[in-house]
Amino acid sequence: MPSYTAPTKDMAFLLHDVLKADQSDIPGYADLERDFTSAVLEEAGKVASEVLTPLNIVGDQERCRLENGVVYTPTGFKGAFEQMKEGGWTGLDMPEEFGGQNMPVLLGTAVGEMFSSANQAFTMYQGLTHGAASAILAHGTDEQKATYLPKMVSCEWTGTMNLTEPHCGTDLGLMRTKAEPQDDGSFKISGQKIFISAGDHDMSDNVIHLVLAKIPGGPEGIKGVSLFIVPKFNVNEDGSVGSRNGVSVGNIEHKMGIHGNSTCVMNYDEATGYLLGTEHKGMRAMFTMMNEARLGVAMQGLAQAEAAYQNAVIYAKDRLQGRDVTGVKNPDGPADPLIVHPDIRRSLMDQKSFVEGARAFLLWGAQLIDAAHRSEDKDADALISLMTPVLKGFLTDQGYDMTVLAQQIYGGHGYIEEHGMSQFTRDARITQIYEGANGVQALDLVGRKLAADGGKPIMAFFEMVKSYCKEQDSDEMKDFIEPLKTASKHLQASAMYFMQSAAKNPNNALAGSYDFMHLFGHVCLAFMWARQARAALDALSTGEGDAAFYETKLTTARYYMARRLPATSMHLARIESGADTVMALEADLF
Amino acid sequence: MPSYTAPTKDMAFLLHDVLKADQSDIPGYADLERDFTSAVLEEAGKVASEVLTPLNIVGDQERCRLENGVVYTPTGFKGAFEQMKEGGWTGLDMPEEFGGQNMPVLLGTAVGEMFSSANQAFTMYQGLTHGAASAILAHGTDEQKATYLPKMVSCEWTGTMNLTEPHCGTDLGLMRTKAEPQDDGSFKISGQKIFISAGDHDMSDNVIHLVLAKIPGGPEGIKGVSLFIVPKFNVNEDGSVGSRNGVSVGNIEHKMGIHGNSTCVMNYDEATGYLLGTEHKGMRAMFTMMNEARLGVAMQGLAQAEAAYQNAVIYAKDRLQGRDVTGVKNPDGPADPLIVHPDIRRSLMDQKSFVEGARAFLLWGAQLIDAAHRSEDKDADALISLMTPVLKGFLTDQGYDMTVLAQQIYGGHGYIEEHGMSQFTRDARITQIYEGANGVQALDLVGRKLAADGGKPIMAFFEMVKSYCKEQDSDEMKDFIEPLKTASKHLQASAMYFMQSAAKNPNNALAGSYDFMHLFGHVCLAFMWARQARAALDALSTGEGDAAFYETKLTTARYYMARRLPATSMHLARIESGADTVMALEADLF
Repeated sequence: MPSYTAPTKDMAFLLHDVLKADQSDIPGYADLERDFTSAVLEEAGKVASEVLTPLNIVGDQERCRLENGVVYTPTGFKGAFEQMKEGGWTGLDMPEEFGGQNMPVLLGTAVGEMFSSANQAFTMYQGLTHGAASAILAHGTDEQKATYLPKMVSCEWTGTMNLTEPHCGTDLGLMRTKAEPQDDGSFKISGQKIFISAGDHDMSDNVIHLVLAKIPGGPEGIKGVSLFIVPKFNVNEDGSVGSRNGVSVGNIEHKMGIHGNSTCVMNYDEATGYLLGTEHKGMRAMFTMMNEARLGVAMQGLAQAEAAYQNAVIYAKDRLQGRDVTGVKNPDGPADPLIVHPDIRRSLMDQKSFVEGARAFLLWGAQLIDAAHRSEDKDADALISLMTPVLKGFLTDQGYDMTVLAQQIYGGHGYIEEHGMSQFTRDARITQIYEGANGVQALDLVGRKLAADGGKPIMAFFEMVKSYCKEQDSDEMKDFIEPLKTASKHLQASAMYFMQSAAKNPNNALAGSYDFMHLFGHVCLAFMWARQARAALDALSTGEGDAAFYETKLTTARYYMARRLPATSMHLARIESGADTVMALEADLF
Repeated sequence: MPSYTAPTKDMAFLLHDVLKADQSDIPGYADLERDFTSAVLEEAGKVASEVLTPLNIVGDQERCRLENGVVYTPTGFKGAFEQMKEGGWTGLDMPEEFGGQNMPVLLGTAVGEMFSSANQAFTMYQGLTHGAASAILAHGTDEQKATYLPKMVSCEWTGTMNLTEPHCGTDLGLMRTKAEPQDDGSFKISGQKIFISAGDHDMSDNVIHLVLAKIPGGPEGIKGVSLFIVPKFNVNEDGSVGSRNGVSVGNIEHKMGIHGNSTCVMNYDEATGYLLGTEHKGMRAMFTMMNEARLGVAMQGLAQAEAAYQNAVIYAKDRLQGRDVTGVKNPDGPADPLIVHPDIRRSLMDQKSFVEGARAFLLWGAQLIDAAHRSEDKDADALISLMTPVLKGFLTDQGYDMTVLAQQIYGGHGYIEEHGMSQFTRDARITQIYEGANGVQALDLVGRKLAADGGKPIMAFFEMVKSYCKEQDSDEMKDFIEPLKTASKHLQASAMYFMQSAAKNPNNALAGSYDFMHLFGHVCLAFMWARQARAALDALSTGEGDAAFYETKLTTARYYMARRLPATSMHLARIESGADTVMALEADLF
């Protein structure tokens, strides 16, 4: 069975040495002293390793089951969920007035990564609830907040997001679910939703569905979509759980992975629903959840890669196979451990330089969200809005690839289910798909975010990287700054190409959108590796702390620059080849 | 349920217009007239689509089961296997004297691709038998050939390869299975083998296991390994099936995919075995099977990508989602089909340019095998020996990535099992692992094949590409030849780097081995795309045939050059960064 050890040391380094969270003037950040964050991270790490990890393979093998309309979660899930509630882990970054602990998203994200690494399918029950609660927090009436939030922050009630229908996922304007207005101000919701994560289960007293539907007579397409709160059980005046609402589980989907999560077909049959936010402005409200959810999925991509990487390292040190060509390393054993072999190192360094770079990128993103929300920092808001599709698309694509690399180190033992490496791969695969498939992220990035506010956010990004490179122009930083400069130039050249060629044909930009997303991701990771190198050099210069840890950071940063960053020139070449060869064929010729 | 249509037109183009098989002087090739190959391909295509495809998802869902020591295959497998035998599909390229049809490997490979596309797990029963029969053909005594080959060519008896043990896969020198010599010249085999594909089942009268084991007192390590024939049922003097031998199924492995194939733990308990080939030279005999098996796995990588691609195309044309930004394409429908979107095109063109390029590469490889075996062409033998790890590693890595891309086009519908896209991904994943994990292929390529015969084969490869480029130096071929030249230079520079730096430190070459394998693969595909372009231009100049087909070839070739080939500069940059950053960390620092 795979094991998991929370990367608390790396997280502390990122929070304090790189992002310097405790020195920030973002409200609440002053509380993030090293002792405090360490205590939280250590405690969360224990829950992850001891409670959630052992249940991961159980969830995969047992799966959820539907019996007589009731969904049962795998053995042990219910007890673990109780422990999460009792430990206060469900409302970490939620407002105190609703029972939360009001911590920054920064810390919530670090903790969330641990839980996702340990058990993605399990953590989704809580993750979806968090997303739904955030939407109610942002768009609900005071009464709605009072009714739902305390119970959802504590996860006594859980939440869901209902967007997809059988015939539409990305293009939600096509949806058919209807919301008929009633005299009392409520609505009757009817229709079918599919792929509803945590759609129903036996771990909470109620499930609060957020459902997108159309009010008849409203505008056509996406502009006529509204968002509704549809509880599984109607809520009585006194806040207690009442009669069953007209919502039922049609089926549990048979999926490639995340078997421990009940992904349901949900049938709404004149279910009572309550408008959340403004009529016909459902998509805007839903986006509150979706941006948060996209960051959460980026986190999952990293989290699976981290868990898989840890187990690959253990196996590579343990499994004896072949001899080091430069000289026997384990003379008393029948063979040397896998880790002596250069190609195994290449794979492990790919993984290590990804997960640590990705974690830095993700936590930086979380810091920007805190700045945007807590300090009303408009620049931070614009930047994280620009980078959200990059975080989601790049971290999940690369996270999946790295998880596959980790599985590969196990050879045939990675293909059988016993060691859990196949599960990491199967679970990670969904992150590239849900919350907007990665092609849609690329479209969002190039079709919407690049042009936002006249291109100011992307220009600000380039300026930020440029200033950093100028400021860090020194001998000791040269190994990191020079590659970052080159990669950033490739990104700028791509953006320039889009601007100049899209006027001729918008497909020139769209045909390069996926490569642009990856090129952008590499620049962000290189930027974060340069910042980690800076922090490591600073720490080393004090002569204090764990020198080996900081030296390892420098080596890993050098690896990323030398071995991963050369991808940017490839992406630029692809982008600059334009749309011609991409679009040349008539559909019939495929 | 997914569908499959055999790509017979593309195969005919490759066999006749590109590889010009019917003009070759390789013995047997003169029979490969268009009418004949078409008839074979069409008939095989029918079997693939109509018989094997419907059973693919059945095999995945039902899996094999072990009951009281007996392995049962999924519903329908037995009947389909009978049809394969009756149709003569099991001995296509086997000698006539043992009941085969003596066709070239070239044609056998084309047919094999179809069967693998349709149902990889099913086709493996026959594939393993073919491999085992090949080893007996190459190394068996006349008596062994007479006893086993007629039954194995017809698949009345099937075969297996027994290499892996729980503690060793790649490093077979560590194996513990023992072979005690008996007075009658036979051996008693005892030990445990794992991951034995088609290890046992209910579709044949006997299973002929080829088992690697050590004769006590022999040389240490890999030099003391011998190969044995161990039948499930002892064979009587008259060739009939006799008493049960001491071999039993310990378990069926629970795997990520290829559920329809019974991957078994095999226990040998003083089972009677017969030496195949020379004592202690078992690895040499096993390599006869393994080189063939590696080409077969390369084929599987392509085959899954082809099947997945076909279904992605169907879905992309059918699923309505969003609108073409350059103008509505389906005004009467609620949305345009996915295929109008540039990023979907990018994905489909990646897949199309891979599968058609890979098929050309694979069939060229098969032609070289025929030349080596039938014409005793030593240059062909050296070239295919050099390229075998490239075929296996590159085609399965890229094949997997392309299968994942095809699955991605389905969005959430690709993640649920219903549409079969998840199965393609799960089945394809094994191709990167078995018959030598791809890291081992890279090691074989750089550590062994590059230096073989003083580097003559790789020099001959470079010379061949160079001559071709010179010969094809014309305006109409410029779009293909220039990129091929550049890519080939990157490959030469890499080889040069290895030569110059490996003397200093052999890890410099090994740390770049994986990138080298991929760089080599891209050069081979570019070469094959140039040759396809040449053939298409020639065909177009005659004014005959399907002009749209040839124009599509030119467009797809251009796409490969513009969009896929830029990867070579990235691989070169990674390679030239050497081993320093790869090997810098002590094992404890991971």
